[in-house]
Amino acid sequence: MKNSSKYKRQYFLPPVECMDWAKKDYVEKAPVWCSVDLRDGNQALVIPMNLEQKIEFFKLLVKIGFKEIEVGFPAASETEYTFLRTLIEENLIPDDVTIQVLTQAREHIIKKTFEAVKGAKNVIVHVYNSTSLSQREQVFRKSKEEILQIAVEGAKLLKELTEEAGESYRFEYSPESFTGTEPEYALEVCNAVLEVWKPTKERKAIINLPVTVQHSMPHVYASQVEYMCKNLKYRENVVVSLHPHNDRGCGVADSEMGLLAGADRIEGTLFGNGERTGNVDIVTLALNMYSQGVEPNLDFTHMTDICEQYESFTGMKINERSPYSGALVFAAFSGSHQDAIAKGMHWLEEKKPEHWTVPYLPIDPTDLGRNYDADVIRINSQSGKGGVGYILETRFGLNLPAKMREAMGYTAKAVSDHTQKELLPEEIFELFKKTFENKVTPLSVCEVHFTQTEHGMDTEVTSSFNGKTVTTHASGNGRLDAVSNALKQAYDLQFELVTYQEHALEKSSSSRAIAYVGIQKPDKTLAWGAGIHADIIHASIDALVTAINNR
Amino acid sequence: MKNSSKYKRQYFLPPVECMDWAKKDYVEKAPVWCSVDLRDGNQALVIPMNLEQKIEFFKLLVKIGFKEIEVGFPAASETEYTFLRTLIEENLIPDDVTIQVLTQAREHIIKKTFEAVKGAKNVIVHVYNSTSLSQREQVFRKSKEEILQIAVEGAKLLKELTEEAGESYRFEYSPESFTGTEPEYALEVCNAVLEVWKPTKERKAIINLPVTVQHSMPHVYASQVEYMCKNLKYRENVVVSLHPHNDRGCGVADSEMGLLAGADRIEGTLFGNGERTGNVDIVTLALNMYSQGVEPNLDFTHMTDICEQYESFTGMKINERSPYSGALVFAAFSGSHQDAIAKGMHWLEEKKPEHWTVPYLPIDPTDLGRNYDADVIRINSQSGKGGVGYILETRFGLNLPAKMREAMGYTAKAVSDHTQKELLPEEIFELFKKTFENKVTPLSVCEVHFTQTEHGMDTEVTSSFNGKTVTTHASGNGRLDAVSNALKQAYDLQFELVTYQEHALEKSSSSRAIAYVGIQKPDKTLAWGAGIHADIIHASIDALVTAINNR
Repeated sequence: MKNSSKYKRQYFLPPVECMDWAKKDYVEKAPVWCSVDLRDGNQALVIPMNLEQKIEFFKLLVKIGFKEIEVGFPAASETEYTFLRTLIEENLIPDDVTIQVLTQAREHIIKKTFEAVKGAKNVIVHVYNSTSLSQREQVFRKSKEEILQIAVEGAKLLKELTEEAGESYRFEYSPESFTGTEPEYALEVCNAVLEVWKPTKERKAIINLPVTVQHSMPHVYASQVEYMCKNLKYRENVVVSLHPHNDRGCGVADSEMGLLAGADRIEGTLFGNGERTGNVDIVTLALNMYSQGVEPNLDFTHMTDICEQYESFTGMKINERSPYSGALVFAAFSGSHQDAIAKGMHWLEEKKPEHWTVPYLPIDPTDLGRNYDADVIRINSQSGKGGVGYILETRFGLNLPAKMREAMGYTAKAVSDHTQKELLPEEIFELFKKTFENKVTPLSVCEVHFTQTEHGMDTEVTSSFNGKTVTTHASGNGRLDAVSNALKQAYDLQFELVTYQEHALEKSSSSRAIAYVGIQKPDKTLAWGAGIHADIIHASIDALVTAINNR
Repeated sequence: MKNSSKYKRQYFLPPVECMDWAKKDYVEKAPVWCSVDLRDGNQALVIPMNLEQKIEFFKLLVKIGFKEIEVGFPAASETEYTFLRTLIEENLIPDDVTIQVLTQAREHIIKKTFEAVKGAKNVIVHVYNSTSLSQREQVFRKSKEEILQIAVEGAKLLKELTEEAGESYRFEYSPESFTGTEPEYALEVCNAVLEVWKPTKERKAIINLPVTVQHSMPHVYASQVEYMCKNLKYRENVVVSLHPHNDRGCGVADSEMGLLAGADRIEGTLFGNGERTGNVDIVTLALNMYSQGVEPNLDFTHMTDICEQYESFTGMKINERSPYSGALVFAAFSGSHQDAIAKGMHWLEEKKPEHWTVPYLPIDPTDLGRNYDADVIRINSQSGKGGVGYILETRFGLNLPAKMREAMGYTAKAVSDHTQKELLPEEIFELFKKTFENKVTPLSVCEVHFTQTEHGMDTEVTSSFNGKTVTTHASGNGRLDAVSNALKQAYDLQFELVTYQEHALEKSSSSRAIAYVGIQKPDKTLAWGAGIHADIIHASIDALVTAINNR
């Protein structure tokens, strides 16, 4: 790159080591979730949502189970004001849902905000100012003391105007750009705000520690959060909230480590929408917990539906590799992965274990409304016997012999490699039939008669090879062996009958069976055939004939 | 969710606490990078790349600066075999680039792999087998001892066949599904492999610890890596490599923390392509380092070009919020962010500081070939004075008075809010001209004459209001004041002239100037006008007339 010396690390470590959080290895309890989709998420869209879209999005959030929803910056635009009034006046806010409104610490803005929330049952008024070194220097050109005063004045104003209005709104304060702020100073500012609010057990205050811009590794942020948690005044009456963005691709790690470090609450969005690289993706956070056995208190059972609604409201596309929600995140194209998944699924059926442990699938796709057939085992040139065998078995009821599955795997792989296409289950079934089922050229069998003898079976076979018909007599241990011998004799064929399997075709028709025959050629390689017929003898002869034609 | 008790944590902690890594707070040195785009990345595509696409992708990787490139699983498909032969036979592999080939530990596969790499100068043969509890139980149904034997046999085979071939290939071993493996057992297996290879300073071995599936939080993985690093035999002759996937959205954190824990090398892909949720995104890792002042040894200066090529080769879309590469990751729509960025950019120009610290921009977009105008300040209904002012200033050379910038901000916001559209710079400029420049109805000025007096300026103004023309005489402190007085008198207008600014229009024409006039109405609100003319007096009168017409 051009010039790395132009950059420096912009974060500040806490004055003492704060790494107690690392003694815990997972998040044991769901935090309070606050959706900021309608604020952060919305303000990062090329085309912000209109009133109808916002209302539908709000309903979706309620349905998923959010109990705290930041609905916007009502003093900042007409649309946001109207949206909030509509929610209130049309009674769209359930009693157990709290709406949160963002405001700067300026009197006329706060007053307009208070007008906007009038009539709402549960309200959090969220006030912020920026505290980082770079914003103090470059944007506000103010001292630490002056910046602290902005926060304190804002806190006082909130308190006074709330008392004046006779309301008991809850309060939230964010030292915005916390991740570029000296932790001791952020603590000083937050404690000054708390000293104004004097939160109680009944009316807790929220202190939100935003990763406005991600500047450090997640364990550094966690140590900052731990430092705050250990030193905030009124800690027992403070809800410590996190608001991570994702500039370094670590929003999820910041959130989870911050929770281990003592935080109680997460502000984020669905699928990580939000300014620049987005806010933290709450879908991932919630399902990370779920897949470790912790109930997240949010419901993503109907993921496909949620994805569709989200895309239609925001105009954004969910990335195909987005954890838990992306179109490809359950897909296994590689042969070895398919094989392992197929075996894992068999293990599930066979052992009925207490816990889900299928390889390559950290979560059961059906828990999110996805399905194994369409979403998991998918066939292209990277795939092998395991995947193709799994599809033929689960979708079409065909349980191929192991070595035949391998041959079918190579066949499918070659077709996909040459056509440069994914093969859908129906195409694989068609390919199977075309390649292995009831082939009647050059050899076909016209008529067969059997006679049971002392030593086995005699047969008279009338067959045709390239149009020339002959009748042959032969013997064998059983019917198929006898027919095989007759055909060898008729055309002087060199092969050994090495595999024979059959099963009822339960899934397509209860009255038919399928037979699989493998023959070994003089060069020791195998050729395969299958036959389907109501009469199993007929099916097995068809399979044999096909195998011979496939030599 | 339906049933969280169906899941358990599938990872295993090291037998002793391994958290020394957390004492470091950032990655101080770039690791060895190995691209697995052509293997992991390719095998996760719905339509894998064809020969031409793979060759072009390989060239792109070389150009970016990768020195180790996994080129595939040459024994597994015709396309992969041909690709590798083409690279070698057409001399496409630079002397300082090592190609890496993946193989299972089976003799005929290894032999085919050795055929495929014949003639290549630098080769890493990468052998793996799966070691996790769930794969041992469900897929292989083998004991720990038997699985260890597979690894050892594979290692021996590699050594023997390499010696037989008279080559000195480097070796890599992966205990695949490491993250579901007991660390003590993974260590035992890796040490058994190393005991076979006996790596030396001249011919180091690579031990790769894949996050085949992400099961734990990143600090747990880091502690596993640290445990391995502390206990591997021949540690000084072993390159410890990481290969994180992204199931829990933590591939970046896994990689960075794993590096702090002692790893030397990263296997990943561009933009996080790869199985399911993808491999770790090397673009993010490299630029995370860069933006903290550490040279990554990879060059993403021409990011837009790299993105385009990647999308065309793979058929994948880079997410709009993908760190450093996404279309929206530098965009600031929100008014307060725009304002801070504009101030930060001014600070840069003014102070020329040693380090980049512009708020909301963790990296300078121009370092990646992006630009401020098109990518950063973008205007929609969330935007405000800062952004609009910045665009008018930097793109069109208009330096509006602060309060007029506010008025222009509201104007743009309202248009965007009602039309539900982003406003492009040209549209903002048009809106400015339409709203604030040279409005001549209802009032227009036809002729003006000035006479300098002892106390100031006398003027004779001929003006027209709604078609009716009058001539008025008045005095003032200066020319504009005099004209203002004349117009007030002519039509009995109530306003105060409160702001006047002007500057040369350097950027559009060196011979013209622009004047801005703000008047205060009886209700104390302001109205604004601007005038552009080669004669500054003319410009200022046009501005005043427009302001009056905008009352």
